[in-house]
Amino acid sequence: MKEITAVIRMNMVNKTKEALAEAGVPAFFALEAQGRGKGLINSALLQGAAKGYEEAAELLGEKGRLYPKRVFTVVVEDTQVEDVVTTIMEVNRTGKPGDGKIFVAPVFDSVRVRTGERGAKSID
Amino acid sequence: MKEITAVIRMNMVNKTKEALAEAGVPAFFALEAQGRGKGLINSALLQGAAKGYEEAAELLGEKGRLYPKRVFTVVVEDTQVEDVVTTIMEVNRTGKPGDGKIFVAPVFDSVRVRTGERGAKSID
Amino acid sequence: MKEITAVIRMNMVNKTKEALAEAGVPAFFALEAQGRGKGLINSALLQGAAKGYEEAAELLGEKGRLYPKRVFTVVVEDTQVEDVVTTIMEVNRTGKPGDGKIFVAPVFDSVRVRTGERGAKSID
Repeated sequence: MKEITAVIRMNMVNKTKEALAEAGVPAFFALEAQGRGKGLINSALLQGAAKGYEEAAELLGEKGRLYPKRVFTVVVEDTQVEDVVTTIMEVNRTGKPGDGKIFVAPVFDSVRVRTGERGAKSID
Repeated sequence: MKEITAVIRMNMVNKTKEALAEAGVPAFFALEAQGRGKGLINSALLQGAAKGYEEAAELLGEKGRLYPKRVFTVVVEDTQVEDVVTTIMEVNRTGKPGDGKIFVAPVFDSVRVRTGERGAKSID
Repeated sequence: MKEITAVIRMNMVNKTKEALAEAGVPAFFALEAQGRGKGLINSALLQGAAKGYEEAAELLGEKGRLYPKRVFTVVVEDTQVEDVVTTIMEVNRTGKPGDGKIFVAPVFDSVRVRTGERGAKSID
């Protein structure tokens, strides 16, 4: 069982949700986040800005900004991981910086609160 | 050391917090989320809605909606996992769809920022 | 590859972001959360409050309160873990309760959505 966490654009939650539902994975949750990826951060500028030089802070401009993102989390069986990663990647790819990241991490167990079912049965 | 993540109803955070404090686990954090579990999603309807057929979109109705949820996260020692899962399950079970899910995942290390303590000492 | 999750004070996101950028780790996301750490929770008081005794609820006071926190998440290579943990710890330490916690958890894989790059290349 794996947790797939995707940091995506805020306007991509609905398309991602629908694509996963069609792929047979209807359960998920989404969080509001702020984030940034790798960018042209110039650490000399950053240090200048930290020291309060207004000019440096202005040059820093857009580079240090955080962008609103959505963090989309789904827990699936091991056999579904590649399909789900591919689905999320395809629906979120625009080719421009900011398309996001997907992370795959281990999950040992899952419980459906209503029934007490555990493991694969709880996420089918 | 394990991370226990519970996706619960938004009105269950206080009850869950109090139940865990009484069980000896006072430290946690909670996030606002939107989510959905397994539901009666009909992928033919979904595809119809995606193509813009208003009738299909209407039939889809409530089925595609996201619900506000809370994601409740606590990191505990391995020996506490079953107790904490049971506590969260019991306090959150209403028997109706939407009671939520609990996931158990590995954590390698933990640090208390104020003291630098690591491992079990940082979460006692 | 590891996920480092730091639960920090809400006014520490910018300082943490800048410290990590200077340490060569510019990519991250941050979530708004509510939380509490270990505190002087007296479970007799909690039980009294739960039973509706106003006096107990008043004594409970600040102790049961949730505080706004930020959850700061970064995925890095194994070789960077200690540096990143130390950086986050140093920039967030005030010595007062509430400085926060840092957790280190496994990540199996990472994908840059725009290019399809996976593993180390996707987080460099």
